Amino acid sequence: MLDLTASSVDLTRIICDIPSVSDSETVLADAIHAAVAALGHLEVHRDGDTIVARTMLGRAQRVVIAGHIDTVPINANVPTRDIEVDGEPYLWGRGTVDMKAGVAVQLKLAAELTSPRVDVTWMWYDHEEVDADLNGLTRLAAVRPDLFAGDFAILGEPSNGQVEGGCNGNLRAIVRTDGVRSHSARAWMGQNAIHKAAPVLARLAEYRPREIEVEGLVYREGLNAVRIGGGVAGNVIPDLCEVEVNYRFAPNHTAAEAEEHVRSVFEGFDVEVVDLAVGARPGLHAALAQEFVAAVGAVPQPKYGWTDVARFSALGVPAVNYGPGDPSLAHHDQERVSLAQIDAVEHGLRAWLTAV
Amino acid sequence: MLDLTASSVDLTRIICDIPSVSDSETVLADAIHAAVAALGHLEVHRDGDTIVARTMLGRAQRVVIAGHIDTVPINANVPTRDIEVDGEPYLWGRGTVDMKAGVAVQLKLAAELTSPRVDVTWMWYDHEEVDADLNGLTRLAAVRPDLFAGDFAILGEPSNGQVEGGCNGNLRAIVRTDGVRSHSARAWMGQNAIHKAAPVLARLAEYRPREIEVEGLVYREGLNAVRIGGGVAGNVIPDLCEVEVNYRFAPNHTAAEAEEHVRSVFEGFDVEVVDLAVGARPGLHAALAQEFVAAVGAVPQPKYGWTDVARFSALGVPAVNYGPGDPSLAHHDQERVSLAQIDAVEHGLRAWLTAV
Repeated sequence: MLDLTASSVDLTRIICDIPSVSDSETVLADAIHAAVAALGHLEVHRDGDTIVARTMLGRAQRVVIAGHIDTVPINANVPTRDIEVDGEPYLWGRGTVDMKAGVAVQLKLAAELTSPRVDVTWMWYDHEEVDADLNGLTRLAAVRPDLFAGDFAILGEPSNGQVEGGCNGNLRAIVRTDGVRSHSARAWMGQNAIHKAAPVLARLAEYRPREIEVEGLVYREGLNAVRIGGGVAGNVIPDLCEVEVNYRFAPNHTAAEAEEHVRSVFEGFDVEVVDLAVGARPGLHAALAQEFVAAVGAVPQPKYGWTDVARFSALGVPAVNYGPGDPSLAHHDQERVSLAQIDAVEHGLRAWLTAV
Repeated sequence: MLDLTASSVDLTRIICDIPSVSDSETVLADAIHAAVAALGHLEVHRDGDTIVARTMLGRAQRVVIAGHIDTVPINANVPTRDIEVDGEPYLWGRGTVDMKAGVAVQLKLAAELTSPRVDVTWMWYDHEEVDADLNGLTRLAAVRPDLFAGDFAILGEPSNGQVEGGCNGNLRAIVRTDGVRSHSARAWMGQNAIHKAAPVLARLAEYRPREIEVEGLVYREGLNAVRIGGGVAGNVIPDLCEVEVNYRFAPNHTAAEAEEHVRSVFEGFDVEVVDLAVGARPGLHAALAQEFVAAVGAVPQPKYGWTDVARFSALGVPAVNYGPGDPSLAHHDQERVSLAQIDAVEHGLRAWLTAV
């Protein structure tokens, strides 16, 4: 069973060494469930591999603090290793940044803070790194929307220990080209769908992403191919090529505007949107948000990656990202987290949650 | 059991309706093996899914007549259908052209011609439509090279009932681009391997294949992508993209020249040659070849597709292609063979093999 009295750093190491690539979170979810169920001060709810644990102290305000327990695929970077970077200690490996260090801090504080100044709803959830409709919070919101009630929400996504407001939106689409099969020895009888995709890749390679200011924070966009596939056999002219593209768009855009932008970039091609989640505006106007920023001593930054702050934002709950780890190292082969940042975030959250 | 007294057209229909995509030829090979083993006048040898059946009449000359029994993947075009095109009867479906009609004619004549004017070595073999090193004849040549002995060879590959001399060579290579993974929300931290492949597809789309005359026949070349793949997950910048290209080259080129050409087209990229088979010069100078061409009344044409004539050519056995079916319909979704061509090829081969 997880020892929640261990340090946040040790807890990070332990839960990173339990692989939990999306759709394989059950072992880790079981461990978290058992550990928090053994605590006396939390009301625990489980749905699939999502665990919710709440204080029920009757406080005037409630804060939701959440983190996902899944990771992107492992690339020879589990188990974790202790390393040094510029003389500073780091924990290296998949999940250290995105976002098990954040989850470890949350688990430790959930166990330790039996009487925080606000009621806290802790959420640890599955399937964040894949399609939005598989996300554990999507499922939970359908069956237990009441669990999302709160005055403020903090997602423990990596933010270098800073407060990152809002998030970019996220769109995935398939750009298809088609052709006609023929024997590759007589290619002139067919039409090559892969060759027809040349302008699709050229437009991606030439694309210059925008930078857009929203409520004082500058959001950097991006448009990338994330997958490509096509081909039938080694001697057949292919009749289909599919390029999956991922558009990260600033939170001032609606879903329709994001889709229109992608369709205009790939004008003349068949485009099918397969996943679309709008971003979230910074959400830093709420009183609790301003108290929180002041308590942790941060200057708010924009969040580039889509995170579930957008989900809380859409429910009317102001939400920010606050967690250890350099987000630019998330999903990176050299993913690694500074041990000092883990401690700093633990300290920041504890100070705010126990302030009088 | 196959009824080898059926007409060539009926035999074509029967063996096309026994699916035999490369690596799944055993059911058809078993049927052929059983049918020819029941004949009294042939010495039968089997190796894997390759069947060899020989007359041993002590004739002064021996001819090898061969056909592959595998097909490219089925694309909703099995079972076969009888159709009409411009008022003429056709058999439609996978394998009708490439090359079960040719195999059917061979099976019928193998059964019927108990005393041809030359000794005949019939060969029906597996794995022609995939890597050359999987080809049943490659395997057979390693264990029983003596079975390839002959003065002339005829491959029953589709040639519209004409005699097609030699064949183009065939090279397949992987053109790779690499990059650095990162979270797609911070694409600027990674390098997108799929975007880097844009010039590879552009060069393929712009490529203009050459036409090259060899011994009076004009060979048309081709360079095509046959597969493409890349990507890790929907939110990860991909670190690898692979484009498999297929180069069909005229029989005047050596293997080294063909490789050099592909490397020059993709200069600046990582190119790995994964399959390479040189072509065959027309091979129409041999006395038996000239008699054959005269007997079937044909004007020789070049063969575009690589065929196993190259294998016989390399062994010093002059070889040509002669079979029913329009080769431009091989591997095509609308693959179909003229029934009249099946009869014509049966007639041509029988006339030559029984001439006095």
